[in-house]
Amino acid sequence: MQRKSFSSMQCPIARSLERVGEWWSILILRDAFFGLTRFDEFQKSLDIAPNMLTRRLNALVEEGLLERHLYCEKPPRYEYRLTQRGRDFRPVLLALLTWGNKHFCPEGESIVLLDAQTGQNADPVLVDAVTGKYINEKGYIIGAGPAADETTLQRVAGAVAK
Amino acid sequence: MQRKSFSSMQCPIARSLERVGEWWSILILRDAFFGLTRFDEFQKSLDIAPNMLTRRLNALVEEGLLERHLYCEKPPRYEYRLTQRGRDFRPVLLALLTWGNKHFCPEGESIVLLDAQTGQNADPVLVDAVTGKYINEKGYIIGAGPAADETTLQRVAGAVAK
Repeated sequence: MQRKSFSSMQCPIARSLERVGEWWSILILRDAFFGLTRFDEFQKSLDIAPNMLTRRLNALVEEGLLERHLYCEKPPRYEYRLTQRGRDFRPVLLALLTWGNKHFCPEGESIVLLDAQTGQNADPVLVDAVTGKYINEKGYIIGAGPAADETTLQRVAGAVAK
Repeated sequence: MQRKSFSSMQCPIARSLERVGEWWSILILRDAFFGLTRFDEFQKSLDIAPNMLTRRLNALVEEGLLERHLYCEKPPRYEYRLTQRGRDFRPVLLALLTWGNKHFCPEGESIVLLDAQTGQNADPVLVDAVTGKYINEKGYIIGAGPAADETTLQRVAGAVAK
């Protein structure tokens, strides 16, 4: 399916989706946080066609989420490491993890987030770093930022009026 | 492109991705949080082909993220409202919003999250509700849960060993 480009839209969610491209990209990033770096490791983990994996890895490098490092000269072999931009994606993965565990694991949790110090299960929630308050639907609303164009302003105004 | 089903995998991230299906689904959920409920509203907002929108809306209803409500009997017209499962997706959207604003809005932010009481910009971060600690990479690690099978256990063990 041809997908239209979202990058021209002002919405930062649409722009983010444009960058992570396909589900495969999100699963590659997940595996990168698991410590995988090499083509063969990703391929084995994801059971993905090599040409598809090559495409997705190249896209993630182009978008600045992964960096390519030569680890063997003859033959040339590269490993893929998360950049800071890639690392900053972790909260998205943890939010997906939390949602998946809550709603789609009727047999119990298989993968969990643990406090490294205590080994206790963590319960990740969004908090406003400015005030320390929990971010719930009533307390926090979407608004227009300084770069909002007319379309975005209308969209936000419509949302507030609802 | 035929996508393989991730739902047989134990990973809750893969299962979540299976449920939100396509980028369109995430943008429809985003618009639902903006207060849109009707077919025409989604279509106008997303500039999406009607048959594609019908498919995505039906999938979101089947997965229990949206509920269909009759708002007009003749002709029959439905609106789509977020279920609790759909509402629980909000932290994923806000994490995508935060990441997009940080990395892909060089001209400045167009859409922001605001404290509804004060109107101040919020800075959403993940915190462990159990301890109140910030969830950073060193302090919180992925572990196996009680339902983990052999493959998942190996995967987690490999990640910890890295």
